[in-house]
Amino acid sequence: MIRSLRRLALGRALPSSAAAEQRLTRPRAIGAFGLDALSSVAYGPDEILYVLILAGSVGLRADLPVAGAIAGLLAIVAFSYRQTIYAYPRGGGSYTVARENLGTGAGLLAAAALMVDYLMTVAVSVTAGVEAIVAFAPALGTHRVIADVLLIALLVLVNLRGVREAGAAFILPTYIFIGSLAVLILLSLAKVLLSGVPPHLHQAPAAVEGFSVFLVLRAFAGGCTAMTGVEAIANGVPAFEKPESKNAAGTLITLALILGALFLGVAGLGYVIRAVPSDQANVVAQIGQTFAPNSPLYYLVQVSVASILVLAANTSFNGFPRLAAIMAEDDWFPHQFSHRGLRLAYSNGIIAIGALAIVLVIVFGGSTHALIPLYAVGVFLCFTLSQAGMVRHWLSDHGPRWHGKMLVNGIGAVTTAAVTVIVMATKFLAGAWIVLLLIPLLVAMFYAIHLHYARAKQELSIERLPEPRRRQQRILVPVAFMNRATAAALDYACSISSDVTAVHFAVDDQVAQDFQQQWKRWANDVPLLLVPSPYREVVSPLVQLVDARRRDAPDEPVTVVLPEVVPHHLWEQPLHNQMATAIKLALLGRPGVVVTSVPVRLRE
Amino acid sequence: MIRSLRRLALGRALPSSAAAEQRLTRPRAIGAFGLDALSSVAYGPDEILYVLILAGSVGLRADLPVAGAIAGLLAIVAFSYRQTIYAYPRGGGSYTVARENLGTGAGLLAAAALMVDYLMTVAVSVTAGVEAIVAFAPALGTHRVIADVLLIALLVLVNLRGVREAGAAFILPTYIFIGSLAVLILLSLAKVLLSGVPPHLHQAPAAVEGFSVFLVLRAFAGGCTAMTGVEAIANGVPAFEKPESKNAAGTLITLALILGALFLGVAGLGYVIRAVPSDQANVVAQIGQTFAPNSPLYYLVQVSVASILVLAANTSFNGFPRLAAIMAEDDWFPHQFSHRGLRLAYSNGIIAIGALAIVLVIVFGGSTHALIPLYAVGVFLCFTLSQAGMVRHWLSDHGPRWHGKMLVNGIGAVTTAAVTVIVMATKFLAGAWIVLLLIPLLVAMFYAIHLHYARAKQELSIERLPEPRRRQQRILVPVAFMNRATAAALDYACSISSDVTAVHFAVDDQVAQDFQQQWKRWANDVPLLLVPSPYREVVSPLVQLVDARRRDAPDEPVTVVLPEVVPHHLWEQPLHNQMATAIKLALLGRPGVVVTSVPVRLRE
Repeated sequence: MIRSLRRLALGRALPSSAAAEQRLTRPRAIGAFGLDALSSVAYGPDEILYVLILAGSVGLRADLPVAGAIAGLLAIVAFSYRQTIYAYPRGGGSYTVARENLGTGAGLLAAAALMVDYLMTVAVSVTAGVEAIVAFAPALGTHRVIADVLLIALLVLVNLRGVREAGAAFILPTYIFIGSLAVLILLSLAKVLLSGVPPHLHQAPAAVEGFSVFLVLRAFAGGCTAMTGVEAIANGVPAFEKPESKNAAGTLITLALILGALFLGVAGLGYVIRAVPSDQANVVAQIGQTFAPNSPLYYLVQVSVASILVLAANTSFNGFPRLAAIMAEDDWFPHQFSHRGLRLAYSNGIIAIGALAIVLVIVFGGSTHALIPLYAVGVFLCFTLSQAGMVRHWLSDHGPRWHGKMLVNGIGAVTTAAVTVIVMATKFLAGAWIVLLLIPLLVAMFYAIHLHYARAKQELSIERLPEPRRRQQRILVPVAFMNRATAAALDYACSISSDVTAVHFAVDDQVAQDFQQQWKRWANDVPLLLVPSPYREVVSPLVQLVDARRRDAPDEPVTVVLPEVVPHHLWEQPLHNQMATAIKLALLGRPGVVVTSVPVRLRE
Repeated sequence: MIRSLRRLALGRALPSSAAAEQRLTRPRAIGAFGLDALSSVAYGPDEILYVLILAGSVGLRADLPVAGAIAGLLAIVAFSYRQTIYAYPRGGGSYTVARENLGTGAGLLAAAALMVDYLMTVAVSVTAGVEAIVAFAPALGTHRVIADVLLIALLVLVNLRGVREAGAAFILPTYIFIGSLAVLILLSLAKVLLSGVPPHLHQAPAAVEGFSVFLVLRAFAGGCTAMTGVEAIANGVPAFEKPESKNAAGTLITLALILGALFLGVAGLGYVIRAVPSDQANVVAQIGQTFAPNSPLYYLVQVSVASILVLAANTSFNGFPRLAAIMAEDDWFPHQFSHRGLRLAYSNGIIAIGALAIVLVIVFGGSTHALIPLYAVGVFLCFTLSQAGMVRHWLSDHGPRWHGKMLVNGIGAVTTAAVTVIVMATKFLAGAWIVLLLIPLLVAMFYAIHLHYARAKQELSIERLPEPRRRQQRILVPVAFMNRATAAALDYACSISSDVTAVHFAVDDQVAQDFQQQWKRWANDVPLLLVPSPYREVVSPLVQLVDARRRDAPDEPVTVVLPEVVPHHLWEQPLHNQMATAIKLALLGRPGVVVTSVPVRLRE
């Protein structure tokens, strides 16, 4: 029953042979890895404006320089990562690069920052996607959080189905997004050139603080979310068609060019129309409202922005479970994260990140703007560690032109380190402190897990199997009814040992005597132990009985055999085995107590 | 570890002997059973006004007559139930009375209506309590739902601790509530008599519909929530000091008098000050704001109203689990609801009603006003069935003066039936249809459960235990590591059968050969089966292997023995046994497969 439900939801189980990944061509790779980066066009320019608007119309003048600086940073990071890709053709995620070149601690730091960032990516992408939908369906506004939660749940389900392989489905929305946004930008530019600047939609509010360097830095930090997808390509090099590195690097540069052009286009047009940041309509929507109001293009852009934002979260659903699995295999993360589910996806990782993202979205009330301060901190710490690791890499690996390469990575490291500091300083009070608290906690957790696994491994190791002791096990079978289920449990118990005792808990002597007489008629062969239980308790006198037996012979386990009724229909499941479940819970993890369930099927 | 956490949250386990209930004196009984009824003073008058205000200031004129009619109804119900108490000294809940006199169907109908109503009581009480707090701490207003959920969770926890026995703690808030509210009413009356009517706080809004009989009936139905606690006393007769019936009846009449006086007082003063219903301040709060603004008395009343409202939910936490337990014992409800937890409370019932109430509060956005339409429907159906049952009771049981008694119960039955119809008709569209849908669904569920239990019982019955077949069980032990945990599982397996096979899933032939060679050195005595699993799968090839063994001998079970590592600390629990858990889940409920867990304790 459960199985058919699961099949309905997840599709049929996949053979492991299906795990051989489809290699990606360059255009496909932009669909698979680029969404995270491209989607930032839809909220990055807004984040700049949210800060600059504080200084009123004066502040807005810094919009273009800040956007330009961000595009410059993107170019530096892209070139720097291009080299990482060539140096690590088997996948150069920050965790790998930092651990190999800077040591375990740096690797774990990068991993922790990455994990936090993957989580933030889901939350930010989905909330931004829903906000984009709200922009042209304002009635949805009040149900924003519910829409966020449902979309995340949908992403979890889709990823549990193993849609990674079917990621090709993402190509179409990606190119519709790039195409429609490019057409909107070009059309708007043409209109501006031909007809001049249109009347402004909004009036810039009065300044609430002065224009300052700190304000500009904050705006820069806010907009820097626009390049989080770069890491995904470096991480996924082995997924590319041969020659992998060349294709990956080419994709990275293409992506950076498209991203830079769109980002500058949106920021620039936003500046021209004096866009004002708003939870109701982002800058892209305001450009659409100004230059192509109520046109098919406007709606196409809005729909494709919304879909691309939501799909961008998928990067995390691929990235986080993979990182968790790598770390679980190295004993830094709970081992269950390395198991593949029915559809070969890392189910536990997918469910974990989905659940955490839902909590995060609810806590932050579904506001992209409130979540953003927690976002870019992790990214830039990763970038810095990864690029610094590359500098060390060139120092020990003197390939051709290593001086120049080291310089490029060095510039990347220094720039991203500076950005990390700016981002931390400017966003600290707005929420980045949470991330700065989380990352060391995560690293401490990694170490604690690693230490525990190492100790457990050592403690469990034995040179060779001791000679099995073929002695009689002491078996207890709690009996309440004289029925087929009890008979099955007793039959099984008698087949594994001749030391079998049925135990009945009787309210008083009279009931006990009656039960004993019935028992003699029903099952004279099996000895019956009557335990007084004046208040009809079963679990606690059973636990006491087991403990007493254990005291007699501490090294020998006591086995409790329980029948488990298997009903025919799923809905009947909760109607059975309550006592067995209560007993199991009470005995769970009790050393020296073996619990055995004997299934008894109901036919009807 | 889990045990110590549980002990911290719930307190030490109670011996069953503590279940002997403390008998209640009359004053204590008002604290134990009266909260639900008394608390309705805080929202009943508001519900009348919410309807009447629709006809503007004209509508408000009907306030006093409606309140008077409700007080009259209360008197009828109290006298009618007084007789039930004498006739059923062992507890005369609607379920019992209806089932014994009107048949099983009527009993189940009453039980379903009661269950829905217990649930609504929790939701309405807690949301009304939070609204009362919001009245003097408006900043809390936006976090209303969170406060509701936390309070319900707290009530679940308190009730899991078995606070029922310590219900004496409720006496103080009850008498503070009665006392402070009585003082406020008397003080306000005195002020009105001495200084005349004060200037009105609010202006009645313009009428949005005409004044009509239907409007008055709706107002009456809205205010009728004010007597839901009467049933609780009839239900709890055995908890009273001897003579039980006399004390219970006396308590009921005392409670009805206090309740009637407070209700009329609040409604009357509300009329005098032209109170306007509002989610921000209920009528009691508005009376306080008018006659004792910002005085200690005002705050005392507000605090005691809030606390009494929240505590009123406790009636349900006693009532629902008890009803569910009685029905579970009669096979009408899942059996687990009849188990008592660590602290002798019916834990499953407590958790179930708490969880359902939380869902309800979230769905209805924490608004008392939105929940009320679902509330009184169940109560009055219960009242009607119970009183109709009493009429039948007198027809078959001709005690002294049975004619007169039948008349009283008859009047009660007819009146409450009329109210049921009014309530259903007037509230149907506002939400009562949900209840009218839920009740028959619940009854259908009761029958389905009963039928299933009857069939299962019949199918499981056997005349006597068949001769135990002392044959060798076929044991499979999946092995991945050669460590102490594997050794413990193998040792146990060898002690219960000589047909033991270790199974290893190998990625390829080379790995398989290597493992086999190591195995020969490590455990030559135990035969090893190597199963190819090219993609490192364990669960599905194991299931296939088990199924193949089962096909060879369908009547003989296959036993899978798994080691279960028991770590020293609670937090380490999730780091172990993932594969064992995955295997258990896959084999769960698979007929003919016995799963045995052998605990292996880690010392550090």
